[in-house]
Amino acid sequence: MIAQTPPMGWNSWDCYGAAVTEDIVRKNADYMAKNLKPFGWEYIVVDIQWYQPTAVNHAYIPFAELTMDEFGRLQPAPERFPSAADGQGFKPLAEYIHSLGLKFGIHIMRGLPRMAAHRHLPIAGGDFRCDEAANPNSVCAWNPDMYGTFADKPAARAWYDSIFRQYAEWGVDYVKCDDIAREYPHCKREIEVISEACRGCGREIVLSLSPGPAPLEQAEHLKRYANLWRITDDFWDDWKLLKGMFERAEKWCIHAAPGHWPDADMLPIGALRQCENPSEWTHFSMPELRTMMTLWCVMRSPLMIGAEMTKLDPASLALLTNADVLALLWGTSGAHPLTTTDEESVWVTRSTETNALYVALFNLSDSPKTVSVDGYSLQCDTHEAKELWSGRQEVFSDRLGV
Amino acid sequence: MIAQTPPMGWNSWDCYGAAVTEDIVRKNADYMAKNLKPFGWEYIVVDIQWYQPTAVNHAYIPFAELTMDEFGRLQPAPERFPSAADGQGFKPLAEYIHSLGLKFGIHIMRGLPRMAAHRHLPIAGGDFRCDEAANPNSVCAWNPDMYGTFADKPAARAWYDSIFRQYAEWGVDYVKCDDIAREYPHCKREIEVISEACRGCGREIVLSLSPGPAPLEQAEHLKRYANLWRITDDFWDDWKLLKGMFERAEKWCIHAAPGHWPDADMLPIGALRQCENPSEWTHFSMPELRTMMTLWCVMRSPLMIGAEMTKLDPASLALLTNADVLALLWGTSGAHPLTTTDEESVWVTRSTETNALYVALFNLSDSPKTVSVDGYSLQCDTHEAKELWSGRQEVFSDRLGV
Amino acid sequence: MIAQTPPMGWNSWDCYGAAVTEDIVRKNADYMAKNLKPFGWEYIVVDIQWYQPTAVNHAYIPFAELTMDEFGRLQPAPERFPSAADGQGFKPLAEYIHSLGLKFGIHIMRGLPRMAAHRHLPIAGGDFRCDEAANPNSVCAWNPDMYGTFADKPAARAWYDSIFRQYAEWGVDYVKCDDIAREYPHCKREIEVISEACRGCGREIVLSLSPGPAPLEQAEHLKRYANLWRITDDFWDDWKLLKGMFERAEKWCIHAAPGHWPDADMLPIGALRQCENPSEWTHFSMPELRTMMTLWCVMRSPLMIGAEMTKLDPASLALLTNADVLALLWGTSGAHPLTTTDEESVWVTRSTETNALYVALFNLSDSPKTVSVDGYSLQCDTHEAKELWSGRQEVFSDRLGV
Amino acid sequence: MIAQTPPMGWNSWDCYGAAVTEDIVRKNADYMAKNLKPFGWEYIVVDIQWYQPTAVNHAYIPFAELTMDEFGRLQPAPERFPSAADGQGFKPLAEYIHSLGLKFGIHIMRGLPRMAAHRHLPIAGGDFRCDEAANPNSVCAWNPDMYGTFADKPAARAWYDSIFRQYAEWGVDYVKCDDIAREYPHCKREIEVISEACRGCGREIVLSLSPGPAPLEQAEHLKRYANLWRITDDFWDDWKLLKGMFERAEKWCIHAAPGHWPDADMLPIGALRQCENPSEWTHFSMPELRTMMTLWCVMRSPLMIGAEMTKLDPASLALLTNADVLALLWGTSGAHPLTTTDEESVWVTRSTETNALYVALFNLSDSPKTVSVDGYSLQCDTHEAKELWSGRQEVFSDRLGV
Repeated sequence: MIAQTPPMGWNSWDCYGAAVTEDIVRKNADYMAKNLKPFGWEYIVVDIQWYQPTAVNHAYIPFAELTMDEFGRLQPAPERFPSAADGQGFKPLAEYIHSLGLKFGIHIMRGLPRMAAHRHLPIAGGDFRCDEAANPNSVCAWNPDMYGTFADKPAARAWYDSIFRQYAEWGVDYVKCDDIAREYPHCKREIEVISEACRGCGREIVLSLSPGPAPLEQAEHLKRYANLWRITDDFWDDWKLLKGMFERAEKWCIHAAPGHWPDADMLPIGALRQCENPSEWTHFSMPELRTMMTLWCVMRSPLMIGAEMTKLDPASLALLTNADVLALLWGTSGAHPLTTTDEESVWVTRSTETNALYVALFNLSDSPKTVSVDGYSLQCDTHEAKELWSGRQEVFSDRLGV
Repeated sequence: MIAQTPPMGWNSWDCYGAAVTEDIVRKNADYMAKNLKPFGWEYIVVDIQWYQPTAVNHAYIPFAELTMDEFGRLQPAPERFPSAADGQGFKPLAEYIHSLGLKFGIHIMRGLPRMAAHRHLPIAGGDFRCDEAANPNSVCAWNPDMYGTFADKPAARAWYDSIFRQYAEWGVDYVKCDDIAREYPHCKREIEVISEACRGCGREIVLSLSPGPAPLEQAEHLKRYANLWRITDDFWDDWKLLKGMFERAEKWCIHAAPGHWPDADMLPIGALRQCENPSEWTHFSMPELRTMMTLWCVMRSPLMIGAEMTKLDPASLALLTNADVLALLWGTSGAHPLTTTDEESVWVTRSTETNALYVALFNLSDSPKTVSVDGYSLQCDTHEAKELWSGRQEVFSDRLGV
Repeated sequence: MIAQTPPMGWNSWDCYGAAVTEDIVRKNADYMAKNLKPFGWEYIVVDIQWYQPTAVNHAYIPFAELTMDEFGRLQPAPERFPSAADGQGFKPLAEYIHSLGLKFGIHIMRGLPRMAAHRHLPIAGGDFRCDEAANPNSVCAWNPDMYGTFADKPAARAWYDSIFRQYAEWGVDYVKCDDIAREYPHCKREIEVISEACRGCGREIVLSLSPGPAPLEQAEHLKRYANLWRITDDFWDDWKLLKGMFERAEKWCIHAAPGHWPDADMLPIGALRQCENPSEWTHFSMPELRTMMTLWCVMRSPLMIGAEMTKLDPASLALLTNADVLALLWGTSGAHPLTTTDEESVWVTRSTETNALYVALFNLSDSPKTVSVDGYSLQCDTHEAKELWSGRQEVFSDRLGV
Repeated sequence: MIAQTPPMGWNSWDCYGAAVTEDIVRKNADYMAKNLKPFGWEYIVVDIQWYQPTAVNHAYIPFAELTMDEFGRLQPAPERFPSAADGQGFKPLAEYIHSLGLKFGIHIMRGLPRMAAHRHLPIAGGDFRCDEAANPNSVCAWNPDMYGTFADKPAARAWYDSIFRQYAEWGVDYVKCDDIAREYPHCKREIEVISEACRGCGREIVLSLSPGPAPLEQAEHLKRYANLWRITDDFWDDWKLLKGMFERAEKWCIHAAPGHWPDADMLPIGALRQCENPSEWTHFSMPELRTMMTLWCVMRSPLMIGAEMTKLDPASLALLTNADVLALLWGTSGAHPLTTTDEESVWVTRSTETNALYVALFNLSDSPKTVSVDGYSLQCDTHEAKELWSGRQEVFSDRLGV
């Protein structure tokens, strides 16, 4: 069973945009295997446009020539992923990552390459052509590469089967499918077809849907057809976005459960935007990063590190390797806010094993303040607590606060 | 501390509309004291228009002469509440109910009697007149008796202080304030003023706001200023309304906590609408009633019996006195749905004392079916369960189902 | 046939609010008879709350005691209209105004006095009581005096018949009914009942509906049941409101025709707001006033002077007595804008008698500029024109401009 | 000056969809020159996809190979337009049509061919490439051929200049630009660029924008940048669409003036849909056709015949050649409805030369009825009229009716 707990890993988007290379991926995988794996981190995900030979940063170049095979299936550009030469695809890189005891993921856009349709390429393993699956009127609003499909056509299912079969052969463990999670209702059927192709491909692959915000009223559909789905548009190192996540977390918290996880997006921590500027560092302060990690863990969001990991400093690394905090991901349920105002928020959840109560106290105001809660509201008689970030044992009387 | 757990009681609306009499109230209180009190039931609430001498059913008579004192405060009509004669108000009735070990509640409309404003009556205990507090442009859409107030005016606060002081003197324990819970934003300030008058009146009085649906985005305001608030319009014995409650319960479930409870409205069980027809009985079937009781208890809604209780049959009484089920109201937290479709719903919650997991399985379809859930989704290893309505111990293998 | 051309007159609102007196009305009628009548001005209209003894300015006093007869019909307050004493109503004043060769109008609110319903007064000439006609849940948002009616009840028709019969007896020629023109859809039926009562009262009475904006999609309903209706909320001496009228005029222009006229509201010219400050004068500059008069005349809006007329200066009087401009009201049709931008507007219309083309050129910008139009756009070959405000004959070549 | 009166002509869409051929165009031009030209008909317009070699009916084939030159400019497919071979384009056909004393028009889609962008073709006469002008995220919702442009880029202006220069060289007199009139606000700037390219191309070309409904609030923008624009989606021979046109005509009527005309779309008369079925005939009855012609003429809509003209029967031909009715297009102004209900509509307009009043009486109900209007509403004293369809002189007393 996949995604029994929220996936934890690294994704190349925040630090390398559309331009990550094999060398960078391998180095980050090495780092994870050595420093983070013991704490549960396991996915290495290559984000968008690994098939675009000339990508250099977070921007997309319209009408670029994409690397594809004779069936229209996008292939890693050998210019950037040398091991993909000679039709090897991501197989060599996936094997390397598996050899480290980690798992390998990729990003895809829904649909098929525009040129595959214009060239009338055949779909692998079937009797269909790409132009029969492609919907010429369905294009992504922010990326120029693909046409969406006529999801009800057998040709569309054949297309998705053909790519997921290849991903299974490559050894892919995780697919982040983009331009789809907020595209209800017109992509509702396409989500189902992708999900069915994924589950039928012969390998256990986690299916993650982007970008958000996915619509709350589609929660049951998302839970049925995906393992994770984004609840926001791209999250970056900006306090307004972080503060806004509390409202989204509140709306979605009851939908987190084994197999399906509302996704608050990546963790913009450490060295980011390396293509634009190799000395770039997250704009988040340490209290903001701690707020982020606490919220993501208490709500049981998937965790995807945005940093160039080899540059992580000790303080950031410590945030990512606090076993007491990460335990929230694995052994709790029923997380929800007790209260959230413009100034503060209090969340609670419980251990499924010990019945221990977890309380998360957040200061959402612009200045230092003590946030507290009384035992009465917590339905809790004990007067002892452990502060998880510091590890301090504390005794409190009327109110629990930080 | 009041409303530490969801209030449980009886309310006269479903069986007597605007026309309940003292004699009926006393007989129902007697019944509750004898049969229901041991299971936690305690409130006896007199609903709308106890001040209207000529009310005969659920309808309101426009421009009726309402019983009021020289300060415009509404008084129980002696024609219907004989013990209220000679300015005694609800004091004798409250004392009687207290003598049974129960608590006493009343219904009020926000605002003040229209005639009190037109007659320029003084407000008790202050320097203001009713016409200074009344807002002539604020009237209830469905009841003809009152004007709302200019809540920011000192006269409005004086008015509400004057009535809550009287309720405290009478010995009122619970006030259901109507025409207000869904009247955001124009009544937001009025809710605050009423809440402050209630909390400052010198007696602990539970404050309940009606009618629903209260707006979800006002959850924090409601939690701060009220003890309970309606999440729906009037709930009656109609399957469509019951089925629709699952969506509302899902939206509101995270906001149930000590001191503040989302309210799914009354329990239309047993003998209802007695003024219209003394042989009227709930249209709900026994499975529907069990569905209702299960949902209300798992979500921790307040419970207000709608029946003429003296006519309760053994099966209905059993539904109201299952200690295992009622225990959900007192010792659980974190209730939320795992899944809700058009066909079925599964809710879970946990005991705050034993860490026991409660699972509620609902068939929402129109035909019999088994609803089940696997242990994996429940994050639960045990294979033993107790079916609370029947009391049966059960062992299950892969899936827990009914 | 009434309202064959747009009514022209004076209304007490702009200068005296709710507080005009008989003496003032008579003096303004005298002035009109002497100075304005030859130019087509004929209506003298007493605006809101002539039945309120204590009104002193534009404000309404909640819960005031209104002057009414034993049937709930409002009567002129003798404190302000001495000739109304002894049940004479407006008959003496109307006779005086008729003696000057003018016509007499009054303002009413839809519905009936609240106290008439609370007192259960009988309706004149029928078998109904006021509390049977009144809708206790229908109150005006800005005035505290009345309840709307249940328009479908025979009691409501009886009520409106009773008041219009009285207006006919008094000699009323024009009724401005308020709180109704923008109150679609809930007042749609009430408009019909009022219209039927008006047309069946035995006297020709122009029916004017306020306040605006009336909804454009109800144009056909308004044309059928009223003679004029407001297309804006209250219009005052504010350039933003005047500029905004161009858009409204454009939307409504095709609906102006004999018997039914979209109404751009009063002309705030000369001495205004006399209760608040006897030296108050319109904030409009002379070019703004000319813009206003030109637009109102070309679109054929009713014209109601807002000034205390006895204080009119020669320049303002000249604006109101330019026969060439006022001729637009009587002998044109098909007025519409050729173009309207943020900077300028050009309207055209034609004489129904001579086929002469009228062109109105408006500067809507904040600085002086020439606004012009070419003969081609006008479908016009002639090169001669008369500037109506100055009376100058002009010859133009390519473009007609001012 | 172009489009001084509403253009009149023939368009190939209704009868041949995307599949018209040169032979058909020539035969229809011959017919028009002989039978319709004396009545003012002059435009022969080749509708969509003249560059698609394999089009066979009203449907579009995704990813078809379009005929284009080395600069990405679409060319008439020689398979269908033989005279276009050897790079002649539409020049020979335009010359033939001009030789008949008629004018020649073509349909275009906004933007440029998708393949021109994917192939990185140069733009004629400039320093830009098609992929620099094309917006890969802007595609038509119903046709698969083109990408829209980044209208603010110089490359976009260069593109439109390049095609309009070619149209001028071909001798095109009329361009119907599609996928744009209702695409506000995102195509607002593109409309301006197209308009500027059209007006700067060195030849007078009427610019017509499709499809509708264009937004009413953009009337001034449309009047400034286009000569005609569609006020509805495609109009076909369906009574519901015809009845619905009355509301649209009412909204737009004041915006018809020399140089800019609200366009009610084609006249589906006679033999239609010839590719699908050569014996197809309009579903409109003769009264419906007369209703259509009357409304289009009184509102001064452009007139574009949809029929295969060589099959016109005498009755249809008579509808198209009634000089009295067509005179409405040329010598009237100020058309507007007096009244429009669900049952009937009355429009009026006036001759700009004789001041004659035109009255159009429409029965919009489902059964025969007399529609009439009184002289009072018409502001008209005469009692004589001519019924234009029959030519009968009539005398009426109180009411004018048919």
